[in-house]
Amino acid sequence: MSPNDHIDPAKIDKLAHLAIRTGVALQTGQNLLITAPIEALPLVRRLAVHAYEAGAGLVTPLFSDPEITLSRYQYANDTSFDTAAGWLYDGMGEAFDANTARLAIVGDDPMLLSEEDPNKVGRANKANSIAYKPARERITRFDVNWNIIAWPGTAWAKRMFPDLLIDEAQSRLASAIFAASRVDHSDPVGEWKAHNAALRSRSDWLNGQDFHALHFVGPNTDLTVGLADGHEWMGGASKAKNGVTCNPNIPSEEVFTTPHAYEVQGHVRSTKPLSHQGSLIEDIEVRFQDGHIFEARASRGEEVLTKVLDSDEGARRLGEVALVPHSSPISQTGLLFYNTLFDENAACHIALGQCYSKCFRGDSDLSKDEIASRGGNSSMIHID
Amino acid sequence: MSPNDHIDPAKIDKLAHLAIRTGVALQTGQNLLITAPIEALPLVRRLAVHAYEAGAGLVTPLFSDPEITLSRYQYANDTSFDTAAGWLYDGMGEAFDANTARLAIVGDDPMLLSEEDPNKVGRANKANSIAYKPARERITRFDVNWNIIAWPGTAWAKRMFPDLLIDEAQSRLASAIFAASRVDHSDPVGEWKAHNAALRSRSDWLNGQDFHALHFVGPNTDLTVGLADGHEWMGGASKAKNGVTCNPNIPSEEVFTTPHAYEVQGHVRSTKPLSHQGSLIEDIEVRFQDGHIFEARASRGEEVLTKVLDSDEGARRLGEVALVPHSSPISQTGLLFYNTLFDENAACHIALGQCYSKCFRGDSDLSKDEIASRGGNSSMIHID
Repeated sequence: MSPNDHIDPAKIDKLAHLAIRTGVALQTGQNLLITAPIEALPLVRRLAVHAYEAGAGLVTPLFSDPEITLSRYQYANDTSFDTAAGWLYDGMGEAFDANTARLAIVGDDPMLLSEEDPNKVGRANKANSIAYKPARERITRFDVNWNIIAWPGTAWAKRMFPDLLIDEAQSRLASAIFAASRVDHSDPVGEWKAHNAALRSRSDWLNGQDFHALHFVGPNTDLTVGLADGHEWMGGASKAKNGVTCNPNIPSEEVFTTPHAYEVQGHVRSTKPLSHQGSLIEDIEVRFQDGHIFEARASRGEEVLTKVLDSDEGARRLGEVALVPHSSPISQTGLLFYNTLFDENAACHIALGQCYSKCFRGDSDLSKDEIASRGGNSSMIHID
Repeated sequence: MSPNDHIDPAKIDKLAHLAIRTGVALQTGQNLLITAPIEALPLVRRLAVHAYEAGAGLVTPLFSDPEITLSRYQYANDTSFDTAAGWLYDGMGEAFDANTARLAIVGDDPMLLSEEDPNKVGRANKANSIAYKPARERITRFDVNWNIIAWPGTAWAKRMFPDLLIDEAQSRLASAIFAASRVDHSDPVGEWKAHNAALRSRSDWLNGQDFHALHFVGPNTDLTVGLADGHEWMGGASKAKNGVTCNPNIPSEEVFTTPHAYEVQGHVRSTKPLSHQGSLIEDIEVRFQDGHIFEARASRGEEVLTKVLDSDEGARRLGEVALVPHSSPISQTGLLFYNTLFDENAACHIALGQCYSKCFRGDSDLSKDEIASRGGNSSMIHID
């Protein structure tokens, strides 16, 4: 494990403070569940400090280790790959029902599993997706306040800057994360207040227009995305069902809403690769008819893409559409992060699968049937 | 985090192999839950490899970090200390019900919390003990195969060898752990077969005698421990209810059985300190009448001891009595480990609280009432 000595501890601390105060907006007495790559330990330690200072009940970190993940592909029996830790996700669901807040740190190698057997990777992902449902549905329903931030993992940094020495690569990625997360200012919490106000004014304008559909045109793209009935545009800070206004993504530059699952026509080609659970999928091209993807191609990782699309009926329909200005700071870096938290904030994009039930006007407590009748999609996946 | 470079990787690997094959005796298709201090990562990685080689379904490690534990005492509100991660322990219970095997690595600083407010420590321990019930009861009932091993944590090593440099201290502790765990032989699995046979012959002899009571006499000790009706002596390898014969403790030198909860008379003074959840309790002296501890003293940590004894009614009665020959290798090292896994194997000892339902002759599936009628104790704690 890297000693991380070349990452500025003051910035790590600022990111932790921002994540607790603005990101997850932890409330006095709330418990906090943190998932993190084991390399992110210095950040997790500062998160715990700021969480307890904010009045946390108990902070419970769950660490994952890429070497242990890989050893499964190297040594396990074939039957292993249909197994998942359902008991842990059932427990998480119980924690969220008891108002535990959620903080996730991304930072793993975006291509961790790219050399592994796609069949095993696909089966393991599917088993995990099914088992993860109790945790996922409480997050997509927005039951509790949650937040995702990033840690400059060494393997991730090396993918982004293959020509640099590992320490330099990590420093570069750290700087990019701190800049995109707006923690290289003297008052990140204040910066985010202003940024949230700007995103709010954009969604207010879009909600005032009440567009029926969006039309995307570009190289290899001609896509009409119908919007769900009563859709609402959102972005930045958002209020969870437990009444807490949090910032789910740090960074975030997008405004987004719910498309109509049956009113998408045309074709689209992604301008950036997708890293999905350790596999890289490049040059994705999909064709829609009446909201359904009937053709999907990729120059790399097509098998993984196909498995994702075959997860369930809703996996071939859209659950989110998002607008990002070309002037966004992440877009302006010109960097390809191979990580959705960043790359989705560099360009307009769509997401497959489960829609966010909060993206409807008025009462956010719509039933499953009401969401479906307005065109909202449902699926066990949600992939930007 | 220490790079652990001065701990022999071949020995780490042998300990991992032994833990999987002999300790937990992992079966093909079984999932494995590992709890570990984050410093033990090199050992956990080898455990994952050997578990998958043995046919594990999924290996799920849960890491704890002492700095995060301490930050709670430094920064949290007072109300935090009545909180525990019940959702996680409920999940563990569910995992054990689905035949997940359990492996625990000890290695934390035995005095981690000794400078913290004993009231907060006591409350946090109690909240945790109550929440931990679903996991604990499945282990004390011996539903599934489980195993505990040790990692030479740096803070632990420093407590044992305060005059040595940290690396030397860790090397010394590592050697002591490897020797006591019998992994410094060419064939540790074979060594444990022979060792299990020796422990078995001792318990067979004791079971043949069918003693009614044991009488311990020593400096400051005159204690008569009545044994439960139909008690059975056990030691070393033992068969869990799922049919798997495992070695719960590595190392282990004891043979042990269930005392009669109401037939213990006299007084006893411990020859070694007890490290209980980060607090050190020294020179424990307790007096029994009809199995009940009516007086308890300690030269250090008496407040923590009293809180433990007040956990519930059964906490003031015995749940286990164990015999260890003075010739045991751990006893012969002369080292004080401040850790029960080791120190309990250096001398005869007793344990407070919950008895092991397996320590009864014949059908091991006795009901709670049957166990109580034979003199078996029940409690939310079990502390050797």
